[in-house]
Amino acid sequence: MSVTVIDTLSRLMGRIPGIGPRSARRIVLFLLRNKQSLLEPLIENFTQLNANIRKCICGNLDEIMPCNICSDINRDNKIMCVVEDVTSLWAIERSGSFSGLYHVLDGVLSPIAGIGPAELKVDVLINRVKSHCVQEIVIALNPTVEGRATAYYLREMIDIKCSVLRVGVPIGGELDYLDNGTIAAALNGRDYSC
Amino acid sequence: MSVTVIDTLSRLMGRIPGIGPRSARRIVLFLLRNKQSLLEPLIENFTQLNANIRKCICGNLDEIMPCNICSDINRDNKIMCVVEDVTSLWAIERSGSFSGLYHVLDGVLSPIAGIGPAELKVDVLINRVKSHCVQEIVIALNPTVEGRATAYYLREMIDIKCSVLRVGVPIGGELDYLDNGTIAAALNGRDYSC
Repeated sequence: MSVTVIDTLSRLMGRIPGIGPRSARRIVLFLLRNKQSLLEPLIENFTQLNANIRKCICGNLDEIMPCNICSDINRDNKIMCVVEDVTSLWAIERSGSFSGLYHVLDGVLSPIAGIGPAELKVDVLINRVKSHCVQEIVIALNPTVEGRATAYYLREMIDIKCSVLRVGVPIGGELDYLDNGTIAAALNGRDYSC
Repeated sequence: MSVTVIDTLSRLMGRIPGIGPRSARRIVLFLLRNKQSLLEPLIENFTQLNANIRKCICGNLDEIMPCNICSDINRDNKIMCVVEDVTSLWAIERSGSFSGLYHVLDGVLSPIAGIGPAELKVDVLINRVKSHCVQEIVIALNPTVEGRATAYYLREMIDIKCSVLRVGVPIGGELDYLDNGTIAAALNGRDYSC
């Protein structure tokens, strides 16, 4: 069987995390069956993505520079939320519960993976904090060991008001599926105001 | 947050079976991080897919018409393998154990889903069998209830030698995970030649 564009595409898509060779072939087939409604819009938008999306100083990805968050005059530029990557930024934006600016660190400290402060956007963060006269940093890193170590490091480095996300049981979660650390934190910080 | 091309792409990709909204966003991000090695080749190949891939009379998808299987003079055109869809065709080709022609039925009979013989490529199959003087049909439909009913129907319609794939335990499979029907069939058809 000769190598067709289908094989090439399946191989390319199989390199995307979470898509195996079988899924890749099925996706290609699905796109072929939905040319007008899906394949053609995808090609157009991928081309735009490739040409127009750039990274803002804050780490957000957008078509305009500065990004729509940095350039929004209604946002509070005295509070800055530090996140690990842009997916965290999007998650917080979806929640609609933060109206300040963001700073994407591009990772967390991880001595095992050889990621020190120099590999992260720590210097840029410190510069932005100074130049914007930011008054509070919300450290919203993922609650992993590395995330906590990085939060501790940032608190040491930045001498303004710092806060981290509260640890507790997630809404809709089941206690049986939660780790001991989360349950202990939720118990220790239990809320008497209910 | 304004609607960017990232949102549009995430929504489009979320319509692909097996990709949810979160996976879609992560894939878009992964592609952005791998522009030259992945995003640009993907755009190029999707464009080719959209422009060049057509469906052969046999149901195979290829850039050339007739497809590389139908036009291969080294293949045995006296034996034809009937499959449900092109993923089955690809799977059999990957096994490298069939050298005849194919016919993709585009589904199986399913009264519940309103799929009768008219919705499938049965007439085309009968015409191809006659015009190519095919001597044997291998019915390689998926071993589901609908697949078996369709195989029975095809045997009735086509008065040449017909065969179906043997049912048995798959190599590397675990008996504990197999259905009773497969185990019963494998036991009843047990092989004394070992």
